[in-house]
Amino acid sequence: MSEYGRTQGSEQSRFRAVRIAMLAPPWIPVPAPAYGGIEEVVRLLSEGLVAREHDVTLFAPPGSESSAEVVTVLDDSYPDEIQKAQFEADHVARAFGEIEAAAERGVPFDLIHDHVGHTALAMADRVAVPLVHTLHGPFTEDACRFYAEHGPKARIVAISQSQLDDAPEGMGGGVVVHNPIDCSEWTFRDDKQDFLLWIGRMSPDKGPHRAIAAAREAGTPLKLAGPIQPGQEEFFAEEVESQLGDGIEYVGEADAERKRELYGEARALLMPIRWPEPFGLVMVESLACGTPVIAFREGSAPEVVEDGETGFIVDDEHAMAQAVGRLGEIDPAACRAACERRFGVSAVVRGYEAVYRAAINGRRE
Amino acid sequence: MSEYGRTQGSEQSRFRAVRIAMLAPPWIPVPAPAYGGIEEVVRLLSEGLVAREHDVTLFAPPGSESSAEVVTVLDDSYPDEIQKAQFEADHVARAFGEIEAAAERGVPFDLIHDHVGHTALAMADRVAVPLVHTLHGPFTEDACRFYAEHGPKARIVAISQSQLDDAPEGMGGGVVVHNPIDCSEWTFRDDKQDFLLWIGRMSPDKGPHRAIAAAREAGTPLKLAGPIQPGQEEFFAEEVESQLGDGIEYVGEADAERKRELYGEARALLMPIRWPEPFGLVMVESLACGTPVIAFREGSAPEVVEDGETGFIVDDEHAMAQAVGRLGEIDPAACRAACERRFGVSAVVRGYEAVYRAAINGRRE
Repeated sequence: MSEYGRTQGSEQSRFRAVRIAMLAPPWIPVPAPAYGGIEEVVRLLSEGLVAREHDVTLFAPPGSESSAEVVTVLDDSYPDEIQKAQFEADHVARAFGEIEAAAERGVPFDLIHDHVGHTALAMADRVAVPLVHTLHGPFTEDACRFYAEHGPKARIVAISQSQLDDAPEGMGGGVVVHNPIDCSEWTFRDDKQDFLLWIGRMSPDKGPHRAIAAAREAGTPLKLAGPIQPGQEEFFAEEVESQLGDGIEYVGEADAERKRELYGEARALLMPIRWPEPFGLVMVESLACGTPVIAFREGSAPEVVEDGETGFIVDDEHAMAQAVGRLGEIDPAACRAACERRFGVSAVVRGYEAVYRAAINGRRE
Repeated sequence: MSEYGRTQGSEQSRFRAVRIAMLAPPWIPVPAPAYGGIEEVVRLLSEGLVAREHDVTLFAPPGSESSAEVVTVLDDSYPDEIQKAQFEADHVARAFGEIEAAAERGVPFDLIHDHVGHTALAMADRVAVPLVHTLHGPFTEDACRFYAEHGPKARIVAISQSQLDDAPEGMGGGVVVHNPIDCSEWTFRDDKQDFLLWIGRMSPDKGPHRAIAAAREAGTPLKLAGPIQPGQEEFFAEEVESQLGDGIEYVGEADAERKRELYGEARALLMPIRWPEPFGLVMVESLACGTPVIAFREGSAPEVVEDGETGFIVDDEHAMAQAVGRLGEIDPAACRAACERRFGVSAVVRGYEAVYRAAINGRRE
């Protein structure tokens, strides 16, 4: 139960434990069986909040596990129905019902932290608990229309300043809290091998072909890891496969363990992206392993990478190749430390605590 | 503006004009550019209610036209995003906002008549106006779960008793109001030609192959009309195309005009369906043209067809063939008259007026 109110008005007033309804999407359990970006944020944040002695109830599909209390809303998970209104509306309406019923039982929630795409935010002015909504996607034209209308109904959290900069004016602003990483799950490694790493889907946006060009110019070996998804076969064959050899190697799709090895051993991660990625999780994973990042000036990269400290921000393949020559300036331990300090679970939890405080105070005003 | 309250308590109390927020789905305009079953119901019902001097505001996508006042909710229609929560939640939340704002301006709506799949019903306990929800789909397992939870938040209207019989107990019941047809848009024809008609998609559920078997046994020519949709090519080739000839003819996909000709000229429509179709509109269209229907005992067929009066309800292909021999017992004029009386716009509007009255009285209780 919330202790927030007990200290209100006292001179020692500080943020105390909050009772949070953490609303995960209805599609797959938390943690996700394979990959789930949103579910991973929900997992780490829930664990981190519980560790700080907040009272967290996680509304999520059956099969979910957490140190938080788990309430399964629907009878099943729906991995094949992602985005469908029937399931999202059902999930959100039932969760809202349970959240309000808790107040009737005398154990009210202080706030809802919503990670569901759209329905909870659109209806946030119709539930008796303040709502915090984390933006998990980019601001497409349709998303801008949506957030301009419904954003003012909640406190909006962007996962990068770059993402927030694309928000429509009508949204009413927001604050930035980066996505978390649990550094203890990633092994720091100081002794690097002589290769660069590129990791991702085989799409032009992600730039494996640009990584190859940069590595060749730098004269440094490159390992490429990642799946070839349906529709990417032609791009892979023409722009990647035909360029292999002479130190350029495709190692296939790396599983969780192999990915950790690659991050740890590489001299640097190359991120020659050409799209406004709201938050580049692979950069943070690399830093956690003590591996600097050389990234194009796109999306969240200039926020995640501190130029000259944890890697380099560059404008093209040529500049990327030149930056490879400066990797000796970067201390792996500094990468790890910066990652922990800026993206570690505690840092992110503290960021959200400030948002929660504002949401609860906002309701009181 | 509603006049309902003015007569309340007087001995002459009767149902007066109601102010209705008619909520169409966000996907395509009303009327639909090509085919839209739900949009057709919304179109006819809105016109019929306005003709009865009700005050109807139609919340629908841009491009919609109606005798009702049209309020376009979103900036666009979304034919390629059907079922997506982003657009459904956006549409419903904006409509709810406008409906409540009308009350603040002193022109409150008496009720919402909701034709959107899921979001409005799931949130119906969070809007300050009573909601009537028409069921447009079958009760799948997922639909049963949904309606058992959210059905009690509104007055539920089924489009057939057969559909309502499949409802989960938890839904809290509902009433039946059939879908409407404007008979004046369909030409009655008394002088029939010597062929039977089957019309529909080329799927096993719809039974074109069973229609062929029945027509052959009856020794009567058959015309089959309808599209071959993606995935239906093999079924069509094996079960339909290979059986053509000897009076069995495939006339392709009939446009609106050709469909009317076929209905008018045919001795009877064959409906050898094997699925619980909630409401078989083609049967009603056929009756409007004065053409009897011979249908399998499935879904709404035994409700739509009055056995021995407007056609025959049969159990299999053999019984269907035998019923062809009894078509002389059916009077085309009786088919048209029954269609008008039972499914005409006025009949359906009167059915909904009773539902609206109950919804408004329910709120007062």
